[in-house]
Amino acid sequence: LKFKIITRTKMETFMINESLEEKLAFMLDSFCKIHASHPNSKVALITSGGTMAPLEKNAVRFIENFSTGTRGSFSAEYFLQNGYAVIFLYRSNSFTPYAQYLSDEKKLLESLHVWKKDNTSVAVVDDEKLPGFAAAVESLHKAQYEGRLILLEFETVTDYLGKLLFISKKLSVLKEKLVMYLAAAVSDYYIPEDQLPIHKMRSSQKTLNLCLTPVPKLLKNLVEMNREAYIVSFKLETDSNTLIAKCKEALDVNSNQLVIGNILHTRYHQKLVVQKVIDHHEKTIKGCRT
Amino acid sequence: LKFKIITRTKMETFMINESLEEKLAFMLDSFCKIHASHPNSKVALITSGGTMAPLEKNAVRFIENFSTGTRGSFSAEYFLQNGYAVIFLYRSNSFTPYAQYLSDEKKLLESLHVWKKDNTSVAVVDDEKLPGFAAAVESLHKAQYEGRLILLEFETVTDYLGKLLFISKKLSVLKEKLVMYLAAAVSDYYIPEDQLPIHKMRSSQKTLNLCLTPVPKLLKNLVEMNREAYIVSFKLETDSNTLIAKCKEALDVNSNQLVIGNILHTRYHQKLVVQKVIDHHEKTIKGCRT
Repeated sequence: LKFKIITRTKMETFMINESLEEKLAFMLDSFCKIHASHPNSKVALITSGGTMAPLEKNAVRFIENFSTGTRGSFSAEYFLQNGYAVIFLYRSNSFTPYAQYLSDEKKLLESLHVWKKDNTSVAVVDDEKLPGFAAAVESLHKAQYEGRLILLEFETVTDYLGKLLFISKKLSVLKEKLVMYLAAAVSDYYIPEDQLPIHKMRSSQKTLNLCLTPVPKLLKNLVEMNREAYIVSFKLETDSNTLIAKCKEALDVNSNQLVIGNILHTRYHQKLVVQKVIDHHEKTIKGCRT
Repeated sequence: LKFKIITRTKMETFMINESLEEKLAFMLDSFCKIHASHPNSKVALITSGGTMAPLEKNAVRFIENFSTGTRGSFSAEYFLQNGYAVIFLYRSNSFTPYAQYLSDEKKLLESLHVWKKDNTSVAVVDDEKLPGFAAAVESLHKAQYEGRLILLEFETVTDYLGKLLFISKKLSVLKEKLVMYLAAAVSDYYIPEDQLPIHKMRSSQKTLNLCLTPVPKLLKNLVEMNREAYIVSFKLETDSNTLIAKCKEALDVNSNQLVIGNILHTRYHQKLVVQKVIDHHEKTIKGCRT
């Protein structure tokens, strides 16, 4: 399955590698079979974490789009609690649902006790030092046991786009049962594969000049593929004066259902919701967690 | 404490912020007092993980130097086992000593059992699924209890350089008791603070051109500050044809004691050691772990 996307400058092809394609196709087809036929099934495809753009083929250096995956993973927990089956497409090493407790390694290590019994030692998490940890582990195990959580990783921006297109295409049979919640922080610029230098750039040059190409915007393609799905996108800006205009513009261009806008420095306690209604409806949600 | 470093293009100043300086100075002075007076004390300053170079002041995007911190953290464990007191200067969220077990969140979550007793639940790590975990936690707690492990974080490349210079200066009283083991992957290029754009770069431009400046090389300054210390540096390359020459060149320029060279794709099982002796002595170590 190849996806040809026309960008401002040329046509680009996104795909996933063959060995993965077969495995993924099998998994997604089985998943869709169960959920498309079940009348009460609801499915959320959630993307989370940041993509990276390599600067070399043997990549040591890359441009990183910062995102811990907090929003995506917390949101996935809410979707799971509300009965959704979740496909979680996330940047490797960013947060997965119920795994935030593991993020602070220092705190986790301090919360561990070692119990000795005969010749064996057992590590136990002190629930007083890390309240809620045991409950989170239980919720995760439950969701996995019920087959309601699929975790899929990505690394580079082309890897992300290839997988997202592939999964969306497969999930399109779910029609109105599907919510797409695109919380991943996608690179705006990258160096296309054919322009990447093979070896590590020398550090003895006077200055280093990099020329980056815009990453193709695929939201429109996703909307066309999944006309009946409910698609939520995000906009992160640093300038609050331009945020509303940018959210409206994004809705107009892409025709998806909801844009959630946030400002970098206030993003943990305030966001702006712009919905597709006759007159754009704007709402600021304060104190929300995700 | 400010450090003025002359680079190819200008003089740059590196320092750490005032509130941290006071705290850090107190901690390091106490640490040095104990170890400088004790005849058998050995101290290792280990740097680990990659630095990042922001592309904006409100940083969403940055150039990342990839490093999980595996080498630095494993090496720290060996130093600790061999009686060293360790100052571990590491990139936030990269591996810390004995914490590799926490890195695979999925595996860790799968290795956890929840035990219920009355109204409380306790999470227990299954030592069969994650062998050695309990022992690692014990070793860590022991090192911390004995005051032989100090963990200090960095993020950006300027943050790293400021802290490294400050710590080296403080540790210079330890003289020949000190080993510096500089395993951090330091950015080669960055955009100096005064040239960073304030807001997020627009994604609507046709192409993005970035002009980066070389990061000043500080090893020479560290050697001058710590004439009696044993200083180990690393070189990572992708081209095996130039590795030996680059290691030799690095030793000649910096006059430190040992350079360990590795090639990106074989770095886990083969490295090259270049020592400062009359004729450069070269040795390839196979099958080594760190």
